[in-house]
Parts: sequence; C-alpha cells; structure tokens
Amino acid sequence: MSVVWLNGALVEDTEARIDPADRGFTLGDGLFETIRAVDGVPAYAARHLARLRTGAEILGLPVAWTDTQLLSALCGVLAANHFANAALRLTLTRGPAARGVLPVGDIYPTTLITAGALPALAGPAWVVVAHSVRRNEFSPLAHIKSLNYLDSIIARREAAARGADDALLLNTQGFLAEASAATIVLHIDGAWVTPPIADGALPGVMRGVILENRAVHEMRITMEALRRTHAAFLANSLGYQSLLAIDEVTLRGAEALTTLALQSLF
Amino acid sequence: MSVVWLNGALVEDTEARIDPADRGFTLGDGLFETIRAVDGVPAYAARHLARLRTGAEILGLPVAWTDTQLLSALCGVLAANHFANAALRLTLTRGPAARGVLPVGDIYPTTLITAGALPALAGPAWVVVAHSVRRNEFSPLAHIKSLNYLDSIIARREAAARGADDALLLNTQGFLAEASAATIVLHIDGAWVTPPIADGALPGVMRGVILENRAVHEMRITMEALRRTHAAFLANSLGYQSLLAIDEVTLRGAEALTTLALQSLF
Repeated sequence: MSVVWLNGALVEDTEARIDPADRGFTLGDGLFETIRAVDGVPAYAARHLARLRTGAEILGLPVAWTDTQLLSALCGVLAANHFANAALRLTLTRGPAARGVLPVGDIYPTTLITAGALPALAGPAWVVVAHSVRRNEFSPLAHIKSLNYLDSIIARREAAARGADDALLLNTQGFLAEASAATIVLHIDGAWVTPPIADGALPGVMRGVILENRAVHEMRITMEALRRTHAAFLANSLGYQSLLAIDEVTLRGAEALTTLALQSLF
Repeated sequence: MSVVWLNGALVEDTEARIDPADRGFTLGDGLFETIRAVDGVPAYAARHLARLRTGAEILGLPVAWTDTQLLSALCGVLAANHFANAALRLTLTRGPAARGVLPVGDIYPTTLITAGALPALAGPAWVVVAHSVRRNEFSPLAHIKSLNYLDSIIARREAAARGADDALLLNTQGFLAEASAATIVLHIDGAWVTPPIADGALPGVMRGVILENRAVHEMRITMEALRRTHAAFLANSLGYQSLLAIDEVTLRGAEALTTLALQSLF
C-alpha cells in the first residue's frame, strides 16, 4: 500500500477512486510528469511544472493548483510514504464528463500524485528502430507529455518481441525522433547531437538541461547518419542509459565516450 | 445516477471505482466501442466485438470475456437503466500496473460498460479541415479504436474555436482521413467515395456497412478533390449528419443527393 495525493487530499491508494467517466480514463484527455525525487526534493520541479502548464495551455485544460501547492503536495506524498528518493508522478486530466469528443460544460480536473521506488540503474542497452509505428511530428502531442502513450507502448512491445531493451522511433518523414520514453543523444561525426523538437522529440526536462549545458546540439538525424553513430545514450528524468548497439550496429566508441559525456553532463 | 457493468458486476456509477494505477488512466492503454442500442438491442454488436478483438490482438491485450458474456452485459446495462435506445460504451484497458511503458507481469484487464441517452439527431453541419493536427497513418492506432483520443479532441477544439461543428483530419501526407469521430463520405465527380484505411481512416463499423452496400467506394482524397465535393455526410455508430459546407465551400448538391444516399444506405 502507498499514500497518494488526489485532488487535495492524501489518501491510501486502495481508497483513491478515479471516476469511470473521467476523461483521462475514457479518452486519454490529460497530461503527466515523471519527477525524480532526490533526498526528499523533487528534482527540476520548476521545469516539470512549467512543462505541465504549457501542455495544459495547448489542451485548454485548467490547472486547479498553484506551483507552490503542487510542490507541497509532491513533498507530502514523499513524506507520507517515507521516501527520500523516489519516482514521483503527477497526473492531470480534464476530469469526469458526459460522453462526446468536445469537452462541454464546467470542468473539474483530476490531479493525482503518486510515488514509487526508483527503478534500478539500467545497464547498457541494445535498442532497435521500431518498424511498427512512427512518431507523429504533425501533432501537438509530440510536444507535450500527454496520457496518449500507446505509440510508445507499441514500440516497446515490438522491441521486447525482438529481444531488445528499448525502441527508437522515427517520425513520419523517416527522421529520428526519440526513444519510447527518453531523449536520445548520439555521438556522430565527432559531435554529440540530439533530434530537434520539430522532428518529434518531446521537449524533455533532462533534454533541456543537457542542451543548456552546450555540450550537445540539435541536429536532424537521418537513418544514414544514425548508422554512423559512434556512441549514444538515453536520458529522461529518472536517469540515463548508455547504448551498446542500435539494430545490428555495435557502437564501438560507447564506453569511453559515454563515460566522458555523462561526467560533463550530469 | 446510472448503473454500469464493471468487471462482471452491475453497480451504481457512483460506486464504480477505477484504480488510479489503471493503465487506461495512466497511459491511455486500452480500447473502446460506442454502440447504438435500438429497441433494447445493441446494433451491429458482432461487428463491434470483432473490432474490439482485432484491436486487443494488436495491443496484446487480453479480453477476459466471451462475446456472449459481453453481449449479455451490454443488454444488462440497458435493462438496469430502463433504456430501450441508448449510446452504449464498452471500454477495455490493460488494468492496474506498476509504472513503466512496457507492460510486465500478470494482466488484470478492466472491462467497463456504460450507457447514456442517444444524442439528438444533429442538423446539417459546417466542418473545417483541421490546421492544428494531422492523423498519423504510420501508427497502428489509426486502425483501432483506442483510448488515445487527444488528436481528435485537439481537432474538435480547433473547430469549435473557428465556429464550426466538426473538424476533418488530413493524414501526414495531406490526404483526407476522416472527421474527428466519424467516417466521411463525399460525392465527388459523380460518385460517392470515402478515404481508404491506408490513408488513416478508422475501419468504422458503419463505414464497413456502407462499403458492403457497394454504393460507396474507397478513394484517396487530395485537398484538390475535396474542393470538388458536391455533397457529403459523416457517419458513425450513433448516426449520420449531412454537411452544408467544408471550410468556405458550400456543398451545393447537399440536400437532394444526401437524402437519396441516406435512403439507399441505411
């Protein structure tokens, strides 16, 4: 059992109830953030809350709480579960409503915060380029962290079926976008690069941190360029993972380069 | 208040509880069907259940019930709510799970059936081609009725903001796919046509019925062809709606042709 924060109250998860008419459940109509807590403090909380508000603006979704209230709630969930380090999740949906695609009438958004143990630091990974699905760079969803995660789930299931650890997604034009739930950073032709937002890369919080650090720059990545990758790693709010191979291509520069990059980036 | 069927039991909707960890809520990991009930009978139930199973197969999502059980449950919800005619909804999700994109461990799917009043028959509509979003024909989601409905919600919100009744979605290549929650059938150059599945049209149940009737055939529809539309209507499981205009183009043949078509199709 664990304690969650639901619409302003700390409750046991077994007592927390999502309405079957919640548009988060019926239509995936909402957003979320995954936040790493370190020593009782939600890391990069201001960036996560800013991204949540940007997404809410795009979806026309009211946020019923101030940043201070949400930060206090995040810390409250950590304390109630006696977590110092944890994976926090903040979910915001358009709340319960009658059927229909267009939201009509008053909105009573649902806000939920949960906490779980941090996943173990993952070892180097073998990733494959997904065949089954492309990321849609022609949708605002490519730019916000929405509840519509099925494309990533399909890609991850394909990777697992092929014996791989994760999948990389191309966009509809065939350019690299990201991994199923992480930014990808690659060492190509002597420089560290990551796909641009316009190609369907989610504006990840760790991606922002890495780019500001100026050791990595944005570059459109074709399949041909991907084949010249010397080293690469995935990064998201919960951590990073170096890559051993992409499809059948072993990354020969992996170990030394990635260690160097991670030292300078984190 | 109304009665819903949740995982095998009829319960008051106020008592029905979705677990906050349900992957339908956290990741949109599930499917649904909207089914019209007429005189106590769910229309085209076999087609709806077959489509649900196709979607479940694509997502690797177990269906815990036989078609007979689901049909009985659909009728049970109608009876418990004293509905003869209604809009039924059957939702299937991957159920509660720990965090993570890849589903791991045992799956306890959530199956929910709800009923609501049928929407009033809508008058002729003015629709606009969405600018804000394109439908991703490179995702299996284009072919299944998943819970990932945000692209349609974004398109409908755009249409409402522009004063229109609904939005048409182009695919990423710029060919017409469908309306936000309906198949579109158009009279172009003397023939009734509808976009092919390969262009991102959802294989709608009413779409299937209309095509089998052979009065309509599949055709790739460019923006240029769309501008030659003489008459058009939208169709989904809850009914049909003739179109008055697409963007700024009034459909001059609308009334007579659509009446004729609807007489032969339904």
